[in-house]
Amino acid sequence: MLSFESDYILGAHEKILDALVRTNGEQLSGYGNDPHTENACRLIKNACHAPEADVFLLMGGTQVNKTVIATLLKPYEGVIAPTTGHVSLHEVGAIEYTGHKVIELPQHDGKLSPSEVREYMNTFYGDENNGMMVVPGMIYISHPTEYGTLYTLSELRELRAIADEYGMRLFMDGARLGYGLMSKNTDVTLPDIAQLCHVFYIGGTKVGALCGEAVVFAKGVAPTRFHSLMKQHGALTAKGRLLGVQFETLFTDGLYFDISRNAIDRAEELKSLLLSCGYELFIASPTNQQFVVLTDAEMGRIKDKCRFSFWERIDSERCVVRFATSYATTSEDIAALARILKGC
Amino acid sequence: MLSFESDYILGAHEKILDALVRTNGEQLSGYGNDPHTENACRLIKNACHAPEADVFLLMGGTQVNKTVIATLLKPYEGVIAPTTGHVSLHEVGAIEYTGHKVIELPQHDGKLSPSEVREYMNTFYGDENNGMMVVPGMIYISHPTEYGTLYTLSELRELRAIADEYGMRLFMDGARLGYGLMSKNTDVTLPDIAQLCHVFYIGGTKVGALCGEAVVFAKGVAPTRFHSLMKQHGALTAKGRLLGVQFETLFTDGLYFDISRNAIDRAEELKSLLLSCGYELFIASPTNQQFVVLTDAEMGRIKDKCRFSFWERIDSERCVVRFATSYATTSEDIAALARILKGC
Amino acid sequence: MLSFESDYILGAHEKILDALVRTNGEQLSGYGNDPHTENACRLIKNACHAPEADVFLLMGGTQVNKTVIATLLKPYEGVIAPTTGHVSLHEVGAIEYTGHKVIELPQHDGKLSPSEVREYMNTFYGDENNGMMVVPGMIYISHPTEYGTLYTLSELRELRAIADEYGMRLFMDGARLGYGLMSKNTDVTLPDIAQLCHVFYIGGTKVGALCGEAVVFAKGVAPTRFHSLMKQHGALTAKGRLLGVQFETLFTDGLYFDISRNAIDRAEELKSLLLSCGYELFIASPTNQQFVVLTDAEMGRIKDKCRFSFWERIDSERCVVRFATSYATTSEDIAALARILKGC
Amino acid sequence: MLSFESDYILGAHEKILDALVRTNGEQLSGYGNDPHTENACRLIKNACHAPEADVFLLMGGTQVNKTVIATLLKPYEGVIAPTTGHVSLHEVGAIEYTGHKVIELPQHDGKLSPSEVREYMNTFYGDENNGMMVVPGMIYISHPTEYGTLYTLSELRELRAIADEYGMRLFMDGARLGYGLMSKNTDVTLPDIAQLCHVFYIGGTKVGALCGEAVVFAKGVAPTRFHSLMKQHGALTAKGRLLGVQFETLFTDGLYFDISRNAIDRAEELKSLLLSCGYELFIASPTNQQFVVLTDAEMGRIKDKCRFSFWERIDSERCVVRFATSYATTSEDIAALARILKGC
Repeated sequence: MLSFESDYILGAHEKILDALVRTNGEQLSGYGNDPHTENACRLIKNACHAPEADVFLLMGGTQVNKTVIATLLKPYEGVIAPTTGHVSLHEVGAIEYTGHKVIELPQHDGKLSPSEVREYMNTFYGDENNGMMVVPGMIYISHPTEYGTLYTLSELRELRAIADEYGMRLFMDGARLGYGLMSKNTDVTLPDIAQLCHVFYIGGTKVGALCGEAVVFAKGVAPTRFHSLMKQHGALTAKGRLLGVQFETLFTDGLYFDISRNAIDRAEELKSLLLSCGYELFIASPTNQQFVVLTDAEMGRIKDKCRFSFWERIDSERCVVRFATSYATTSEDIAALARILKGC
Repeated sequence: MLSFESDYILGAHEKILDALVRTNGEQLSGYGNDPHTENACRLIKNACHAPEADVFLLMGGTQVNKTVIATLLKPYEGVIAPTTGHVSLHEVGAIEYTGHKVIELPQHDGKLSPSEVREYMNTFYGDENNGMMVVPGMIYISHPTEYGTLYTLSELRELRAIADEYGMRLFMDGARLGYGLMSKNTDVTLPDIAQLCHVFYIGGTKVGALCGEAVVFAKGVAPTRFHSLMKQHGALTAKGRLLGVQFETLFTDGLYFDISRNAIDRAEELKSLLLSCGYELFIASPTNQQFVVLTDAEMGRIKDKCRFSFWERIDSERCVVRFATSYATTSEDIAALARILKGC
Repeated sequence: MLSFESDYILGAHEKILDALVRTNGEQLSGYGNDPHTENACRLIKNACHAPEADVFLLMGGTQVNKTVIATLLKPYEGVIAPTTGHVSLHEVGAIEYTGHKVIELPQHDGKLSPSEVREYMNTFYGDENNGMMVVPGMIYISHPTEYGTLYTLSELRELRAIADEYGMRLFMDGARLGYGLMSKNTDVTLPDIAQLCHVFYIGGTKVGALCGEAVVFAKGVAPTRFHSLMKQHGALTAKGRLLGVQFETLFTDGLYFDISRNAIDRAEELKSLLLSCGYELFIASPTNQQFVVLTDAEMGRIKDKCRFSFWERIDSERCVVRFATSYATTSEDIAALARILKGC
Repeated sequence: MLSFESDYILGAHEKILDALVRTNGEQLSGYGNDPHTENACRLIKNACHAPEADVFLLMGGTQVNKTVIATLLKPYEGVIAPTTGHVSLHEVGAIEYTGHKVIELPQHDGKLSPSEVREYMNTFYGDENNGMMVVPGMIYISHPTEYGTLYTLSELRELRAIADEYGMRLFMDGARLGYGLMSKNTDVTLPDIAQLCHVFYIGGTKVGALCGEAVVFAKGVAPTRFHSLMKQHGALTAKGRLLGVQFETLFTDGLYFDISRNAIDRAEELKSLLLSCGYELFIASPTNQQFVVLTDAEMGRIKDKCRFSFWERIDSERCVVRFATSYATTSEDIAALARILKGC
């Protein structure tokens, strides 16, 4: 059945599979000490224009979030995140499990407001009693956010300035980073991100890989013995080649960007289709996730012919649902959806 | 100087000191295995009308909060607390340090709203995605709250009903419990609390003791090997007599209640005085902490003659300050304050 | 170059790769809610003769060890392990990071001695002071061990009896379980293990998969909300199919056992070759890892022609090295090694 | 009954009680911001000849151990301790609960052997595989040890040299430090300790106080925001005066040393008595704890007339028991014991 359920319903892009098959017989050392991993890290640093960055390959997003946050924060520090942040809401308290508070600030279409972060910090350092409080040591943002929205370059610069002013780190969760970079409505490039964030990651799992996220630490930011810390967090892969080969492929000949661009192009077609059919968009998402308001009746009619994700209920008659495109979504898929929607 | 700075500016009530002196030469076993501790626990259970409760004596409030919460929650559970709760704000993330999320709900004069807790739980269990979320396993309240306010018997009953319905524990932080019990505006008794809370503690440090808090677990609630868990948390006192003798004294001949009643009586006089002088109360506190709105000019005039606590700034000209009474506050102190306020 | 460096130098068995390619285009739900994962778990339960077991698929061994141990132990409990156990020595303190002590007992060829475990428990429960001590709540063993050795059925039965007697869980780390099961010198079957262990895992990474370990909990042993706990530990894979498809393949038509048997057959040939060449075996390993004593001179001559792992130094002239076979080792490889060894 | 059960069977030295009574009515700020605490810290720094040290007052020994170790170690580090160390054995895994491994090395009369520590470190840094291992970041010793024994100045110097060589901290648990300093058989002074240890603590609870341990960090060693970290660990006392007044008293006019000297003098008398009665000393303890070998028959006869502590069983007929002296032990007590022993 036609499916827009998520961007991780398929296996991997065929070039990735091909590369895994092609390299399968190579005898390689484990734990990331292999030439594919080395090459992948080099290619990523090139794409970031950050030759002195440190790149590490981990398996999944929550794993990255908890390993990075726990190893960069001091024991008395917590991480600022929007109330809808993945680390705030949907990781079963993985950050708290490492001993650190997620300091939740209001979200605006999934984003933190730089001015509210600044105000929080002003108030914090103005409070005589802050010796009894968790010190904010990091700002966590996702880009795209959980609602598909994006920070502007100006907002990222402001967040970095606040971070610098108050001795915090700026950390970007890029589980869907490719879709952010290829959006038609962004002024933020990968080198911008590499320059402005102390640490961020480039999502593979939701952008065409079987698994894997590439963490990029700006020069000098990576914790000492980070490989050991990954092991301690259960985040070091014995057959590191599995990650190395995939990211090597994604960052050869711009595949990562091509994959992402396709998803964006299809998402734009999807958005036009939805609007032309008279549906209301819940949020103005410039990336591959589109959030639509449907009545229960509409939802009932569509769901027998096409898969999508239930997001949340608005009132007794209407819900928000999500349609996601991916590397594999075709214009034919959008056309098929058009027939369904117009027939409903 | 006349001081209403806090309820812990003095040492201990003289009967407590006398008892420490009187028993000083007794040869006693350590770690709470002494007759004074045993007697204190018996007296507390009697006062609670809870002969089958389990009582443990610990040193301080944060220590109690983290030890109780960490040992009662399952690994995937967190604790619901108001945004202004002590565990939310003023314990340097001690709860998160034990691996558990504090799930912050809005505060209303320092209190949780039972209906908002219920709504949160309904939404939580209605969310298909809650397998990715921290499960609320406990409701934390303080009584009196950080703003001196109190829950009604009806509210406590409702919170307990919600806790039972959703498999949560109800935990009351009673750092200032005596002042709550002796308030003129409460319908809640100690046996009510012992019946309605799965666990609560009776504060000593802020109610006339040098140190110490008595944790009361309802029948069957105390974790297995709680003494060992106290040790693991650095919360087991070698000379347990220090706590045993103090609580034995506090719960002999109603001293705990007498101390608390004096603070309440003086607080009522203080409140009348403040109102008669035309000051605005920031909040209607029925306990020993009174929060007053002062202009900067008023604050400046008073603070040379009398100590109080700065609480928070309202606007560019006005602040909230706190006056606290205690076991040692006398009517003469209130009269002296009257002279100061009227002279200012 | 001919390599016996480890059993994870290659990618995956070709049937696994084929299955990943074949299923790549299927639209599947994430987080293990897909039919391949379901089928893999069913096949594993069948192979274990344990229809009521609970099976979960995780990414790697350390991840399994820390997630299983942390979620089964009570806060005051620790895990007994041999001093050479993987959790004792080579996981950067991953177990302690979750808050639990690894109680190290002496190792004998990599194994715990059941009688020493029993003696430890007798002493522990005979010690009046054990309220200040970590309670042993689990026995961790690996099978094969880090030295390739195996427990006998009788030893496993005794360890389980001790565990039952003292309220402990018996946990088997089976990172190389297949090689243990297919050994010529074992009386232990997979159903025996499923019956005797409270929990164990079937290693994939070192037995022909790209990644993945299958954790099997005996009936009723799995922690509540284990999926959520996996997420909290960063151990839940978004594209669960990656694990599901691999284990489905390994447990279809006995592939897991065939792979393992090949490694054992080659290891036996290897052992004969080594002995016939006059080398001394460091330990009598009945599985796919063979530990050989070499002089520095011998090591120097061989290592230009064939890869192996340095294990440890014995004295100023001699070392222990490891030769490992795998699913892909052929009789031709052994013959090639024979030519090298005889030429050296 | 005559009792040598422990050095914490009584309350506090009378000068301490007097000081608590005398200062009880002073209005003082909380959390250690009071002049008695300030003065106590100054006096301690003077006694240590360490004007630039940082001194903090905590409640008890396990609390100090876990707070100091957890806040000084990096996430991938563990602490070396003897197998009989308090942190290894008798704190219910409090150190592991903070996420760090206790690396247990052999004990020799309760002590670490510097040469064995050095050998461990050599081996560790010579191991190619140490990226998978916990890095030793601290050496924990107790002085006196759990067996009453003492390090020599030369041993302490060697441990410090090893610590410096390998980037470790040297931490001394001084729960009974006074008895070590006043021993007839020591060449170690308090300024020596302050110079050689990165951090140590001066025990109060077992040396005449009701509670309290004074942690001394050498210049520059104390973690940033240590007061906040104490709060996070539940180790910050609201009425800090309770600790400040006690340590102020102990370090005025040499009371701490006088108390300790009395215990040592009585212990020497006790040792002579035991030897003259023909009893065998289990260990040659130069401090206030004496370990004696008794047959079951002897133990039975004595225990009706005098209290002591059972330590451990040697064989089916003999045990080790402990006699401890304290600030309050008198020569009359020793004479009374002589009558008992000679009558038995």
